[in-house]
Amino acid sequence: MDAWPIHIPITTMPGGRMSRPSINALTAPLVESLVADAEILRLGIERLENGCLLVDAGIHVKGSLEAGRRIAEICLGGLGSVSLSGSGPVAGWPLAVHVHAADPVLACLGSQYAGWSLSHKESDKKGFNALGSGPGRALSLKEPLFNELGYRDQADRTCLVLEVDRLPPLPLCEKIARDCGVDADALTLILTPTSSLAGTVQIVARVLEVAMHKSHELGFDLQAIQDGMGSAPLPPPAADFLTAMGRTNDAILFAGLVQLFVRGEDAQAQKLAIDLPSSASRDYGRPFGEVFKAYGYDFFKIDPMLFSPARVMVSALDSGNSYAAGALDTALMAASFGIEP
Amino acid sequence: MDAWPIHIPITTMPGGRMSRPSINALTAPLVESLVADAEILRLGIERLENGCLLVDAGIHVKGSLEAGRRIAEICLGGLGSVSLSGSGPVAGWPLAVHVHAADPVLACLGSQYAGWSLSHKESDKKGFNALGSGPGRALSLKEPLFNELGYRDQADRTCLVLEVDRLPPLPLCEKIARDCGVDADALTLILTPTSSLAGTVQIVARVLEVAMHKSHELGFDLQAIQDGMGSAPLPPPAADFLTAMGRTNDAILFAGLVQLFVRGEDAQAQKLAIDLPSSASRDYGRPFGEVFKAYGYDFFKIDPMLFSPARVMVSALDSGNSYAAGALDTALMAASFGIEP
Amino acid sequence: MDAWPIHIPITTMPGGRMSRPSINALTAPLVESLVADAEILRLGIERLENGCLLVDAGIHVKGSLEAGRRIAEICLGGLGSVSLSGSGPVAGWPLAVHVHAADPVLACLGSQYAGWSLSHKESDKKGFNALGSGPGRALSLKEPLFNELGYRDQADRTCLVLEVDRLPPLPLCEKIARDCGVDADALTLILTPTSSLAGTVQIVARVLEVAMHKSHELGFDLQAIQDGMGSAPLPPPAADFLTAMGRTNDAILFAGLVQLFVRGEDAQAQKLAIDLPSSASRDYGRPFGEVFKAYGYDFFKIDPMLFSPARVMVSALDSGNSYAAGALDTALMAASFGIEP
Repeated sequence: MDAWPIHIPITTMPGGRMSRPSINALTAPLVESLVADAEILRLGIERLENGCLLVDAGIHVKGSLEAGRRIAEICLGGLGSVSLSGSGPVAGWPLAVHVHAADPVLACLGSQYAGWSLSHKESDKKGFNALGSGPGRALSLKEPLFNELGYRDQADRTCLVLEVDRLPPLPLCEKIARDCGVDADALTLILTPTSSLAGTVQIVARVLEVAMHKSHELGFDLQAIQDGMGSAPLPPPAADFLTAMGRTNDAILFAGLVQLFVRGEDAQAQKLAIDLPSSASRDYGRPFGEVFKAYGYDFFKIDPMLFSPARVMVSALDSGNSYAAGALDTALMAASFGIEP
Repeated sequence: MDAWPIHIPITTMPGGRMSRPSINALTAPLVESLVADAEILRLGIERLENGCLLVDAGIHVKGSLEAGRRIAEICLGGLGSVSLSGSGPVAGWPLAVHVHAADPVLACLGSQYAGWSLSHKESDKKGFNALGSGPGRALSLKEPLFNELGYRDQADRTCLVLEVDRLPPLPLCEKIARDCGVDADALTLILTPTSSLAGTVQIVARVLEVAMHKSHELGFDLQAIQDGMGSAPLPPPAADFLTAMGRTNDAILFAGLVQLFVRGEDAQAQKLAIDLPSSASRDYGRPFGEVFKAYGYDFFKIDPMLFSPARVMVSALDSGNSYAAGALDTALMAASFGIEP
Repeated sequence: MDAWPIHIPITTMPGGRMSRPSINALTAPLVESLVADAEILRLGIERLENGCLLVDAGIHVKGSLEAGRRIAEICLGGLGSVSLSGSGPVAGWPLAVHVHAADPVLACLGSQYAGWSLSHKESDKKGFNALGSGPGRALSLKEPLFNELGYRDQADRTCLVLEVDRLPPLPLCEKIARDCGVDADALTLILTPTSSLAGTVQIVARVLEVAMHKSHELGFDLQAIQDGMGSAPLPPPAADFLTAMGRTNDAILFAGLVQLFVRGEDAQAQKLAIDLPSSASRDYGRPFGEVFKAYGYDFFKIDPMLFSPARVMVSALDSGNSYAAGALDTALMAASFGIEP
């Protein structure tokens, strides 16, 4: 009899649940390396008087696509890879972003999703508002989402990515550090304007994240999502914020391609595939900038179901069946980008 | 006179032959890193009572595509790279595997080929049977192939990959260690079920290896093969072994694309190109599952020449001429995968 | 009042100009790793009596595509990435090269461009002539181009890449070291024959560099170029120098795809897009080998404007507008490569 004995479980936790990686521990070396390579990546590095480190990826400096690629990997909590390639979902388009995350729920929703609402009122001008993305969110736990994820991280140092075009006020930096439970000099804030080279990459690298987020909005069981891959063309960076926001959204809405691998019943997987693509939204059909304008630039009037990839394949692991829906629309993409592939 | 003096040959061996790398030395850090990242990659790590380390990539744990990618690089003996991308040979298919090996003969046949037949009879149930893949094969030298390759490795630690869906019996683990000439606690066995996420990647990453193996079966001089590249779409993992085996084979047979760079006469290169594609087999034309069923699930009745990429280009380095044959068949691929691209 | 204080500028230099990275410091570890992996990459490593290290990537040894990929990254001064993939600009072609450089002016023109003319007269045969590429150029500063780039590097060790098919004479190696201001034993020369596997990759990896160089020739302001990406199919290596030169050129001229991101006025960006593609040259329209032959193999009679990618997109960052021109010509590519995709 040679029944197979299990003696030293190393990573399996009591009850059979795997322990979870620390996204702050995973990203710390990536942040360190980003700062060390600031010269090559054309980043500005500034230390505030309270010790907080700011990485400027396109406000007072040029930044670069490669900086955006590396910032996107930081956003993913060190759990995913982002690559730039001359080939992607749209034939003939010269530059595409490919995103793969080993644990897309934790990588995309627990880290990459820009879900931490940050604001600071300033006496002499309009306030500073930003959405925080990255591993710091799993320390501050300001969002109800973390209850659903059942994940909280512990760390002495952390990092947050802000899609902003000016530097955050000092008190806000201190508040962020406090909320994360770290010293101010252990906090790094990475600033990526929407219209910058780095910003364009780090937004389009959210092609998988928007699919994860909409899956959650649709009520799909997040724990059922096992793996995922996404790709999208990189739009030309726009000169102004509104156009930049439109193009980076449209890269995903009209030409993003995502595959999710899920557990559970086929009916659920099929329903997800049908509901997930951007074309399932009532607001689908014209460039994002036009939709935004039509709603009087009121973001909250836009159908939240619009934010998702153009085409989605959902592969059900328990049955082996796959379901796909949506389609790339190169003409709408070109209308948004201002150029044909 | 300034004839050029050669003084300190470092890597060139007597007779002009290059020395060969140790695939076990090259893979040791990759295995170590795989085990270290088990949590991220959702692998189970277990140490047997005899010290042998088991890496479960999908039996009792979820595993991940990224785990499969890294296991595939271990299979290649540390001599190749495997990448996942949103673009590959089939337009519109969301996920593809790309494989490149600097020395495809050693990487694919000396390491990746699943050529070591392992079995253990168990008293109370049917025996445990598996085919061993990876750098341990070059230590045990159980296959006549190693005589032809003229390669043997020496190492204190080793690793073997088994495409199985249950854990190997302890005596078999001990036998493997003994055959490899290493202590049991210096052996790592990586277990990848055919239908798992990791298994799907590591099998499709054999797109170049099957081309190498069939080249050998066709009698082509292996030493003439200098370099090679392969790519194929990643099929949706199937729920059962038979369907999973069918799809992973069909990804290669119907949509695998390989280029080989060879020395020697054009006539040989051209003959290889013509004979190599899957379509040159009498059993080509329907999904692998149907072929297997038609032969009463007797693997040995299937034409061994079926196992090869859909399309092959052979580039003859001595003449500069290239020869291509075969074609991708997206319809047959879709029939096997159960979904259109 | 919480105006945001800047206290410790780390990488920003007086006048707001960023300091520049040392391409010799960046490439030193890449060269070291190339030499360390010589066995795997099938490179020959020889040390001359004066201590100069020669890396033979295809003269007396086989070399490999992977060696070429890594040499190309060395050529880029450690400022860019080169990847091989099964998908690229030409559908169905099995192997493509993708090049991305964070600072394409410095990476491509300050390092990768083969602009240092090296020659040595030998008494008993025709002289040795080569064009030096790589980070050593920024030490010797033999080219007027460096005045325009406003860049000079300082380093104790350096490296140069020569596209040659025989070993350089000892006195030339000494002269190179002297011109670079380094000891002879601190100089590494990497030798890549045009027709070798490694040579083919490292030449086609110039797809972005030729766009940068032609932009310069066209009088476009180099400082306006912020980022860039290029891709091209890898041609089959040819057996002879002339055919190899033809194919590697044609891979870029007929099937190279480049995107540049530039500052400045739209009119300039648009003019660049129109003038940049190879089809804007009077000599465009037949394989390079035929053009070369028609001019009696006199390189200097060929229109220098021929050397550029088939299709170019120029994205103007200040306006957000993009301009594209040129087109891939798969038929001409196939005529040059001697095989259809």
